[in-house]
Amino acid sequence: MNFNLQEAIEVLKRTPKTIGIFLDGLSDEWMTCNEGEGTWSVIEVIDHLIEGEKYNWIPRLEMILLDGESRPFPPFDRYSHLNEKSEKNIEQKLLEFNTTRTENIVKLTKLITPDHLELTGSHPAFGKVKVRELISTWVVHDLTHISQIVRVMAKRYKLDVGPWIEYLGVLKR
Amino acid sequence: MNFNLQEAIEVLKRTPKTIGIFLDGLSDEWMTCNEGEGTWSVIEVIDHLIEGEKYNWIPRLEMILLDGESRPFPPFDRYSHLNEKSEKNIEQKLLEFNTTRTENIVKLTKLITPDHLELTGSHPAFGKVKVRELISTWVVHDLTHISQIVRVMAKRYKLDVGPWIEYLGVLKR
Repeated sequence: MNFNLQEAIEVLKRTPKTIGIFLDGLSDEWMTCNEGEGTWSVIEVIDHLIEGEKYNWIPRLEMILLDGESRPFPPFDRYSHLNEKSEKNIEQKLLEFNTTRTENIVKLTKLITPDHLELTGSHPAFGKVKVRELISTWVVHDLTHISQIVRVMAKRYKLDVGPWIEYLGVLKR
Repeated sequence: MNFNLQEAIEVLKRTPKTIGIFLDGLSDEWMTCNEGEGTWSVIEVIDHLIEGEKYNWIPRLEMILLDGESRPFPPFDRYSHLNEKSEKNIEQKLLEFNTTRTENIVKLTKLITPDHLELTGSHPAFGKVKVRELISTWVVHDLTHISQIVRVMAKRYKLDVGPWIEYLGVLKR
């Protein structure tokens, strides 16, 4: 096991700033492309990250502290952001992600100390889960969606790279 | 084909700033972990990106403009950075990557106009390649290594996420 609360927070803090500096001002063509029908554009990934800040990570941590395993988490709908079309533009969405994340890190550091890491809650699909696992997943979830953003963008140039496709692993996924 | 010179430059400009804001100040444990023997740490990825700025992209573009297909590019050793251990710390390396990239974008915009995109050079393994393909590859190469950085970091928590591993695609690669 490698989890360390301070190191986890280091990543959580950086994610919205990192995505912000990468995407802010990019052409619409980069923002709206996807990997084909039923896949997400970069903008839809940001929508999903915002949903997580509102309804997933901190609410679940609060439930573990309050109810332990006695009450399962409400399911988190990973596709809800596709149904509720927001009027916000990408700059406003990046700002919202950054703001809600910053607030959630304040909450996290107030709620959780190293003594809480082995406390358990009940996941609707997995059953017993630990605080440590939930915060680790929050971190890896950030990383998996950064990976998705760059993969979606890379695939726009799949045909453009010509023979170099052989060396570019990201285009083969 | 989706390549557009201005859109490509948008990404090339952002990569070092994005990686910089993500990595600056992170704990050593995030910087030095890798995916197992023979794989690269985050620091080694930055070393490789710097090598590309010095010896790969712009030198090859200059060769195409100067020699066309008459002289093949010297091979680019993708592992050379593993042999030459630098004394620089990560902050200095991030700064070097940012500085060389900024200089190279100035060179790129001076060297290449849309009229040059179909010019051809000779790649030591692939044979005939186009300016358009080389610049597209530069962009996708950035994206593939951002993807690698977050994947290497995510795998540190592979065991820590517990049952959530099922939902986290980045841990399965």
